[in-house]
Amino acid sequence: MTDRAPEGEQALLAEPMRSRWSPSIFDDTHVITTEQVRLLLLAAQWAPSCGNAQPAAFVVAVRGSASHQVLVRHLSRGNSGWVPRASVVLVIGAQVAPDENGEGGYKPFHAEYDTGQAAAHLSLQARAMGLHAHQFAGFDKAAVAEELGVPAHYKLMAGIAVGVPGNPADVAERDRDREHRPRRRRPLAAVAHGARWGLPWDGLDE
Amino acid sequence: MTDRAPEGEQALLAEPMRSRWSPSIFDDTHVITTEQVRLLLLAAQWAPSCGNAQPAAFVVAVRGSASHQVLVRHLSRGNSGWVPRASVVLVIGAQVAPDENGEGGYKPFHAEYDTGQAAAHLSLQARAMGLHAHQFAGFDKAAVAEELGVPAHYKLMAGIAVGVPGNPADVAERDRDREHRPRRRRPLAAVAHGARWGLPWDGLDE
Repeated sequence: MTDRAPEGEQALLAEPMRSRWSPSIFDDTHVITTEQVRLLLLAAQWAPSCGNAQPAAFVVAVRGSASHQVLVRHLSRGNSGWVPRASVVLVIGAQVAPDENGEGGYKPFHAEYDTGQAAAHLSLQARAMGLHAHQFAGFDKAAVAEELGVPAHYKLMAGIAVGVPGNPADVAERDRDREHRPRRRRPLAAVAHGARWGLPWDGLDE
Repeated sequence: MTDRAPEGEQALLAEPMRSRWSPSIFDDTHVITTEQVRLLLLAAQWAPSCGNAQPAAFVVAVRGSASHQVLVRHLSRGNSGWVPRASVVLVIGAQVAPDENGEGGYKPFHAEYDTGQAAAHLSLQARAMGLHAHQFAGFDKAAVAEELGVPAHYKLMAGIAVGVPGNPADVAERDRDREHRPRRRRPLAAVAHGARWGLPWDGLDE
């Protein structure tokens, strides 16, 4: 994999937002260090959350580990080729109900939103460390939760595959193709409202 | 406001995650440029989302603008002192149901999670540009949605106040006190599971 240049207006952003994208060809010989994984987790931990509830939690599935083997067995067909090659997968869950003791600093309205923030901080920390992250949803979440003993008050949201670029010749054509899809976003006028919803923010005219 | 140094292990992170925090004392004479606001919105837009659904949308409430006046009227008492001083508030919503045409690239399972990712990218872009962001939930979301015409398929999640540090003497004691609260996070052993949930990831031993 040769890395991709930022597309369109993404090139205007500061790093690590500028060069973040989600590759699908990882080097399956790259070994991530425990210190690197610890920094990824710390970045997630220092993301903001409503009332500092910190709803995000993780299963750390280093390639080849016991939890990685469970995850790999339950990947969707589309993810079964590329995900197992990544150096680590952080399976991320959101605390969506009180814990066994009725506690947990739990703020239900923002549990998923703040878990997304933790995932973003983790992914951007990865990019800043020269790694790439690719989040995916395609795995049997109920089966993984059951086999790994995830309690019912946590909802598994996604897997975050982290690693370094690999050789396109080592992966299936489908995964090579995915790597070259154009990356697009809706125009700001469709998402940035001004005086009221439906009136685009007037800063877009300039 | 003198800026805060990163606390504890946050100091190990890469910028802009390293120096991000949520100040409550903004300079109410600082004017943000439209280009700066545009970059904040672009950062949100280039966050990843499930199937590229891009569920996040914004009301851009520059201090003193029509939408800002609506928001300020509906702030909670705790937020009514500090929020109006920020240079801009981005009110962020998540598309949680199909639009009027039954469309919208809408992925309900990840709508709030991915909206949180957009908020995180926006906030970190702010930090990288020398600005600070402080997200808040305390406002009458139903009243703001009604007055600004937010359609029912969007759920308002938070406000993101962005600006630069102000003079502590200009704000109420409550807001000054908030600025010096210790910032804490749960230990990684509480959130990073390994071989299965409840068994801390073994990388934490080293």
